[in-house]
Amino acid sequence: MTEIYSRVAVIGIGLIGSSVALAARRAGVVGHIVGCDSDADVAPEVKRLGLADSFTTDAVAAVADADLVVMSVPVGAIGALAERIIPAMKPGAVLTDTGSTKRSVIRDVTPHVGDDIHWIPSHPLAGTEHSGPAAGFPDLFNGRYWLILPGGVPEAEVARFESFVTAIGAVAERMDADYHDKVLALTSHLPHLIAYTIVSTAVNLESQLKNDVIRFSASGFRDFTRLAASDPVMWRDVFINNDEAVLEMLQRFSEDLSDLQRAIRWGETDKLESLFHRTREIRRSIIDAGQS
Amino acid sequence: MTEIYSRVAVIGIGLIGSSVALAARRAGVVGHIVGCDSDADVAPEVKRLGLADSFTTDAVAAVADADLVVMSVPVGAIGALAERIIPAMKPGAVLTDTGSTKRSVIRDVTPHVGDDIHWIPSHPLAGTEHSGPAAGFPDLFNGRYWLILPGGVPEAEVARFESFVTAIGAVAERMDADYHDKVLALTSHLPHLIAYTIVSTAVNLESQLKNDVIRFSASGFRDFTRLAASDPVMWRDVFINNDEAVLEMLQRFSEDLSDLQRAIRWGETDKLESLFHRTREIRRSIIDAGQS
Repeated sequence: MTEIYSRVAVIGIGLIGSSVALAARRAGVVGHIVGCDSDADVAPEVKRLGLADSFTTDAVAAVADADLVVMSVPVGAIGALAERIIPAMKPGAVLTDTGSTKRSVIRDVTPHVGDDIHWIPSHPLAGTEHSGPAAGFPDLFNGRYWLILPGGVPEAEVARFESFVTAIGAVAERMDADYHDKVLALTSHLPHLIAYTIVSTAVNLESQLKNDVIRFSASGFRDFTRLAASDPVMWRDVFINNDEAVLEMLQRFSEDLSDLQRAIRWGETDKLESLFHRTREIRRSIIDAGQS
Repeated sequence: MTEIYSRVAVIGIGLIGSSVALAARRAGVVGHIVGCDSDADVAPEVKRLGLADSFTTDAVAAVADADLVVMSVPVGAIGALAERIIPAMKPGAVLTDTGSTKRSVIRDVTPHVGDDIHWIPSHPLAGTEHSGPAAGFPDLFNGRYWLILPGGVPEAEVARFESFVTAIGAVAERMDADYHDKVLALTSHLPHLIAYTIVSTAVNLESQLKNDVIRFSASGFRDFTRLAASDPVMWRDVFINNDEAVLEMLQRFSEDLSDLQRAIRWGETDKLESLFHRTREIRRSIIDAGQS
């Protein structure tokens, strides 16, 4: 494929950062890849896994001459990072992030962006419960949505960035920040919050019962433990930075849960059965939409 | 393999019943299999899929001369079924069920059991979100626990039934009813209840948002829709019949959820992060226990 960006800096070499590097390299759409992580221990991993052409722990040095800068750090750290690196960026370069919340990232980054930088917040809907440089793989984005928030950036630059995410396997989709945070609150943040909660409920059980919950986990609980094994710092930041939408969806969820709880307590069989028929329809819609 | 039961009646040809029939046939541990379902429309399916050697809609006729009778119907229907079939059963035969709640099943069945029937309640920890005769497959029980509640049945008969479940691929494990219902409330019933709830919360969203939740479901929500697509009648009966343990676990869950909600509202980052580290450990325990 033709080169889309000749020099790319990936800052934060975790699951997403390393996958971006691997996928971009494989697609042949980038020239030099600079890997950057504040943790110096990541350097040997980056070398061993062939994640980047060069590596530095200095984010300011990393962005020099880069045509595309990808910030793949927890959302709570993106603002301070942007503030440091933007003055060192090449005029005309594209700055993006891969964070799971968008209103907070835009709030934290935008004040530091000058006229000569194209700031395109984005969010790939891809991930696993694993984290760290070794967790990345080049197929991570295959067929997955990559949400893009173009703001006031010139169309040519947005289209170029879209061609980059398409080249690494993703399906580009434009969205605004408010809507993004609301949709993700329900599709991703609330499910993770609930998974963390139920696993935490198990953590608090007396030890024999806890051991047997682990042993017999295959009947539903195990699916939750996978979500609840996701990166703790990343998720701490997501909940804190999308608190408004998460708390709103959580309120709706709690009302619906109380309703079900009451139906169980009072033995309202018809109500339960008809509700369970409706939820089954949603699964069918997802299968029909090819998202299963 | 040697024949363990020469004539087996499977009553209720859904996911579990059809899988029992297929697995027992393949293992070569049974002679004649009688399939029975109150729904006459199931007959052509049973024939087409080769699930049984004969089929009847009459449960009383089905159990005649059977050495093993397996009741695979929703737990709310087991008591009435047992009351009808036990008088027609052969003295010395084994009666079991595959229901997901055990205290209620024992409460409903035991009063009808005479001295000449070996009543061994049981519960295979296996299933998928699919239901009906065509959903069954002979590998369903491979490596999965099959919980057995021996009660006062002679050891030789319990051991014989254990050899049957082992022959069809499962791992036999003895347990008592109170403990079973408590462990399953957390490992299975509460996860399903929560999955039903969050999918129901999505059902109630305005239509555009609901469509996008379906479209972008891959980020966590989709896992819940799988659980929430499970058989509505079966699950209605589970919640109603294990209400005590489910409501207790739900109360614990709600307290833990409120605690997390408060931590998000007040921005308690350390608390969130340390909790998420602890839940990650549970996943590791499950992986170490070989249950992943």
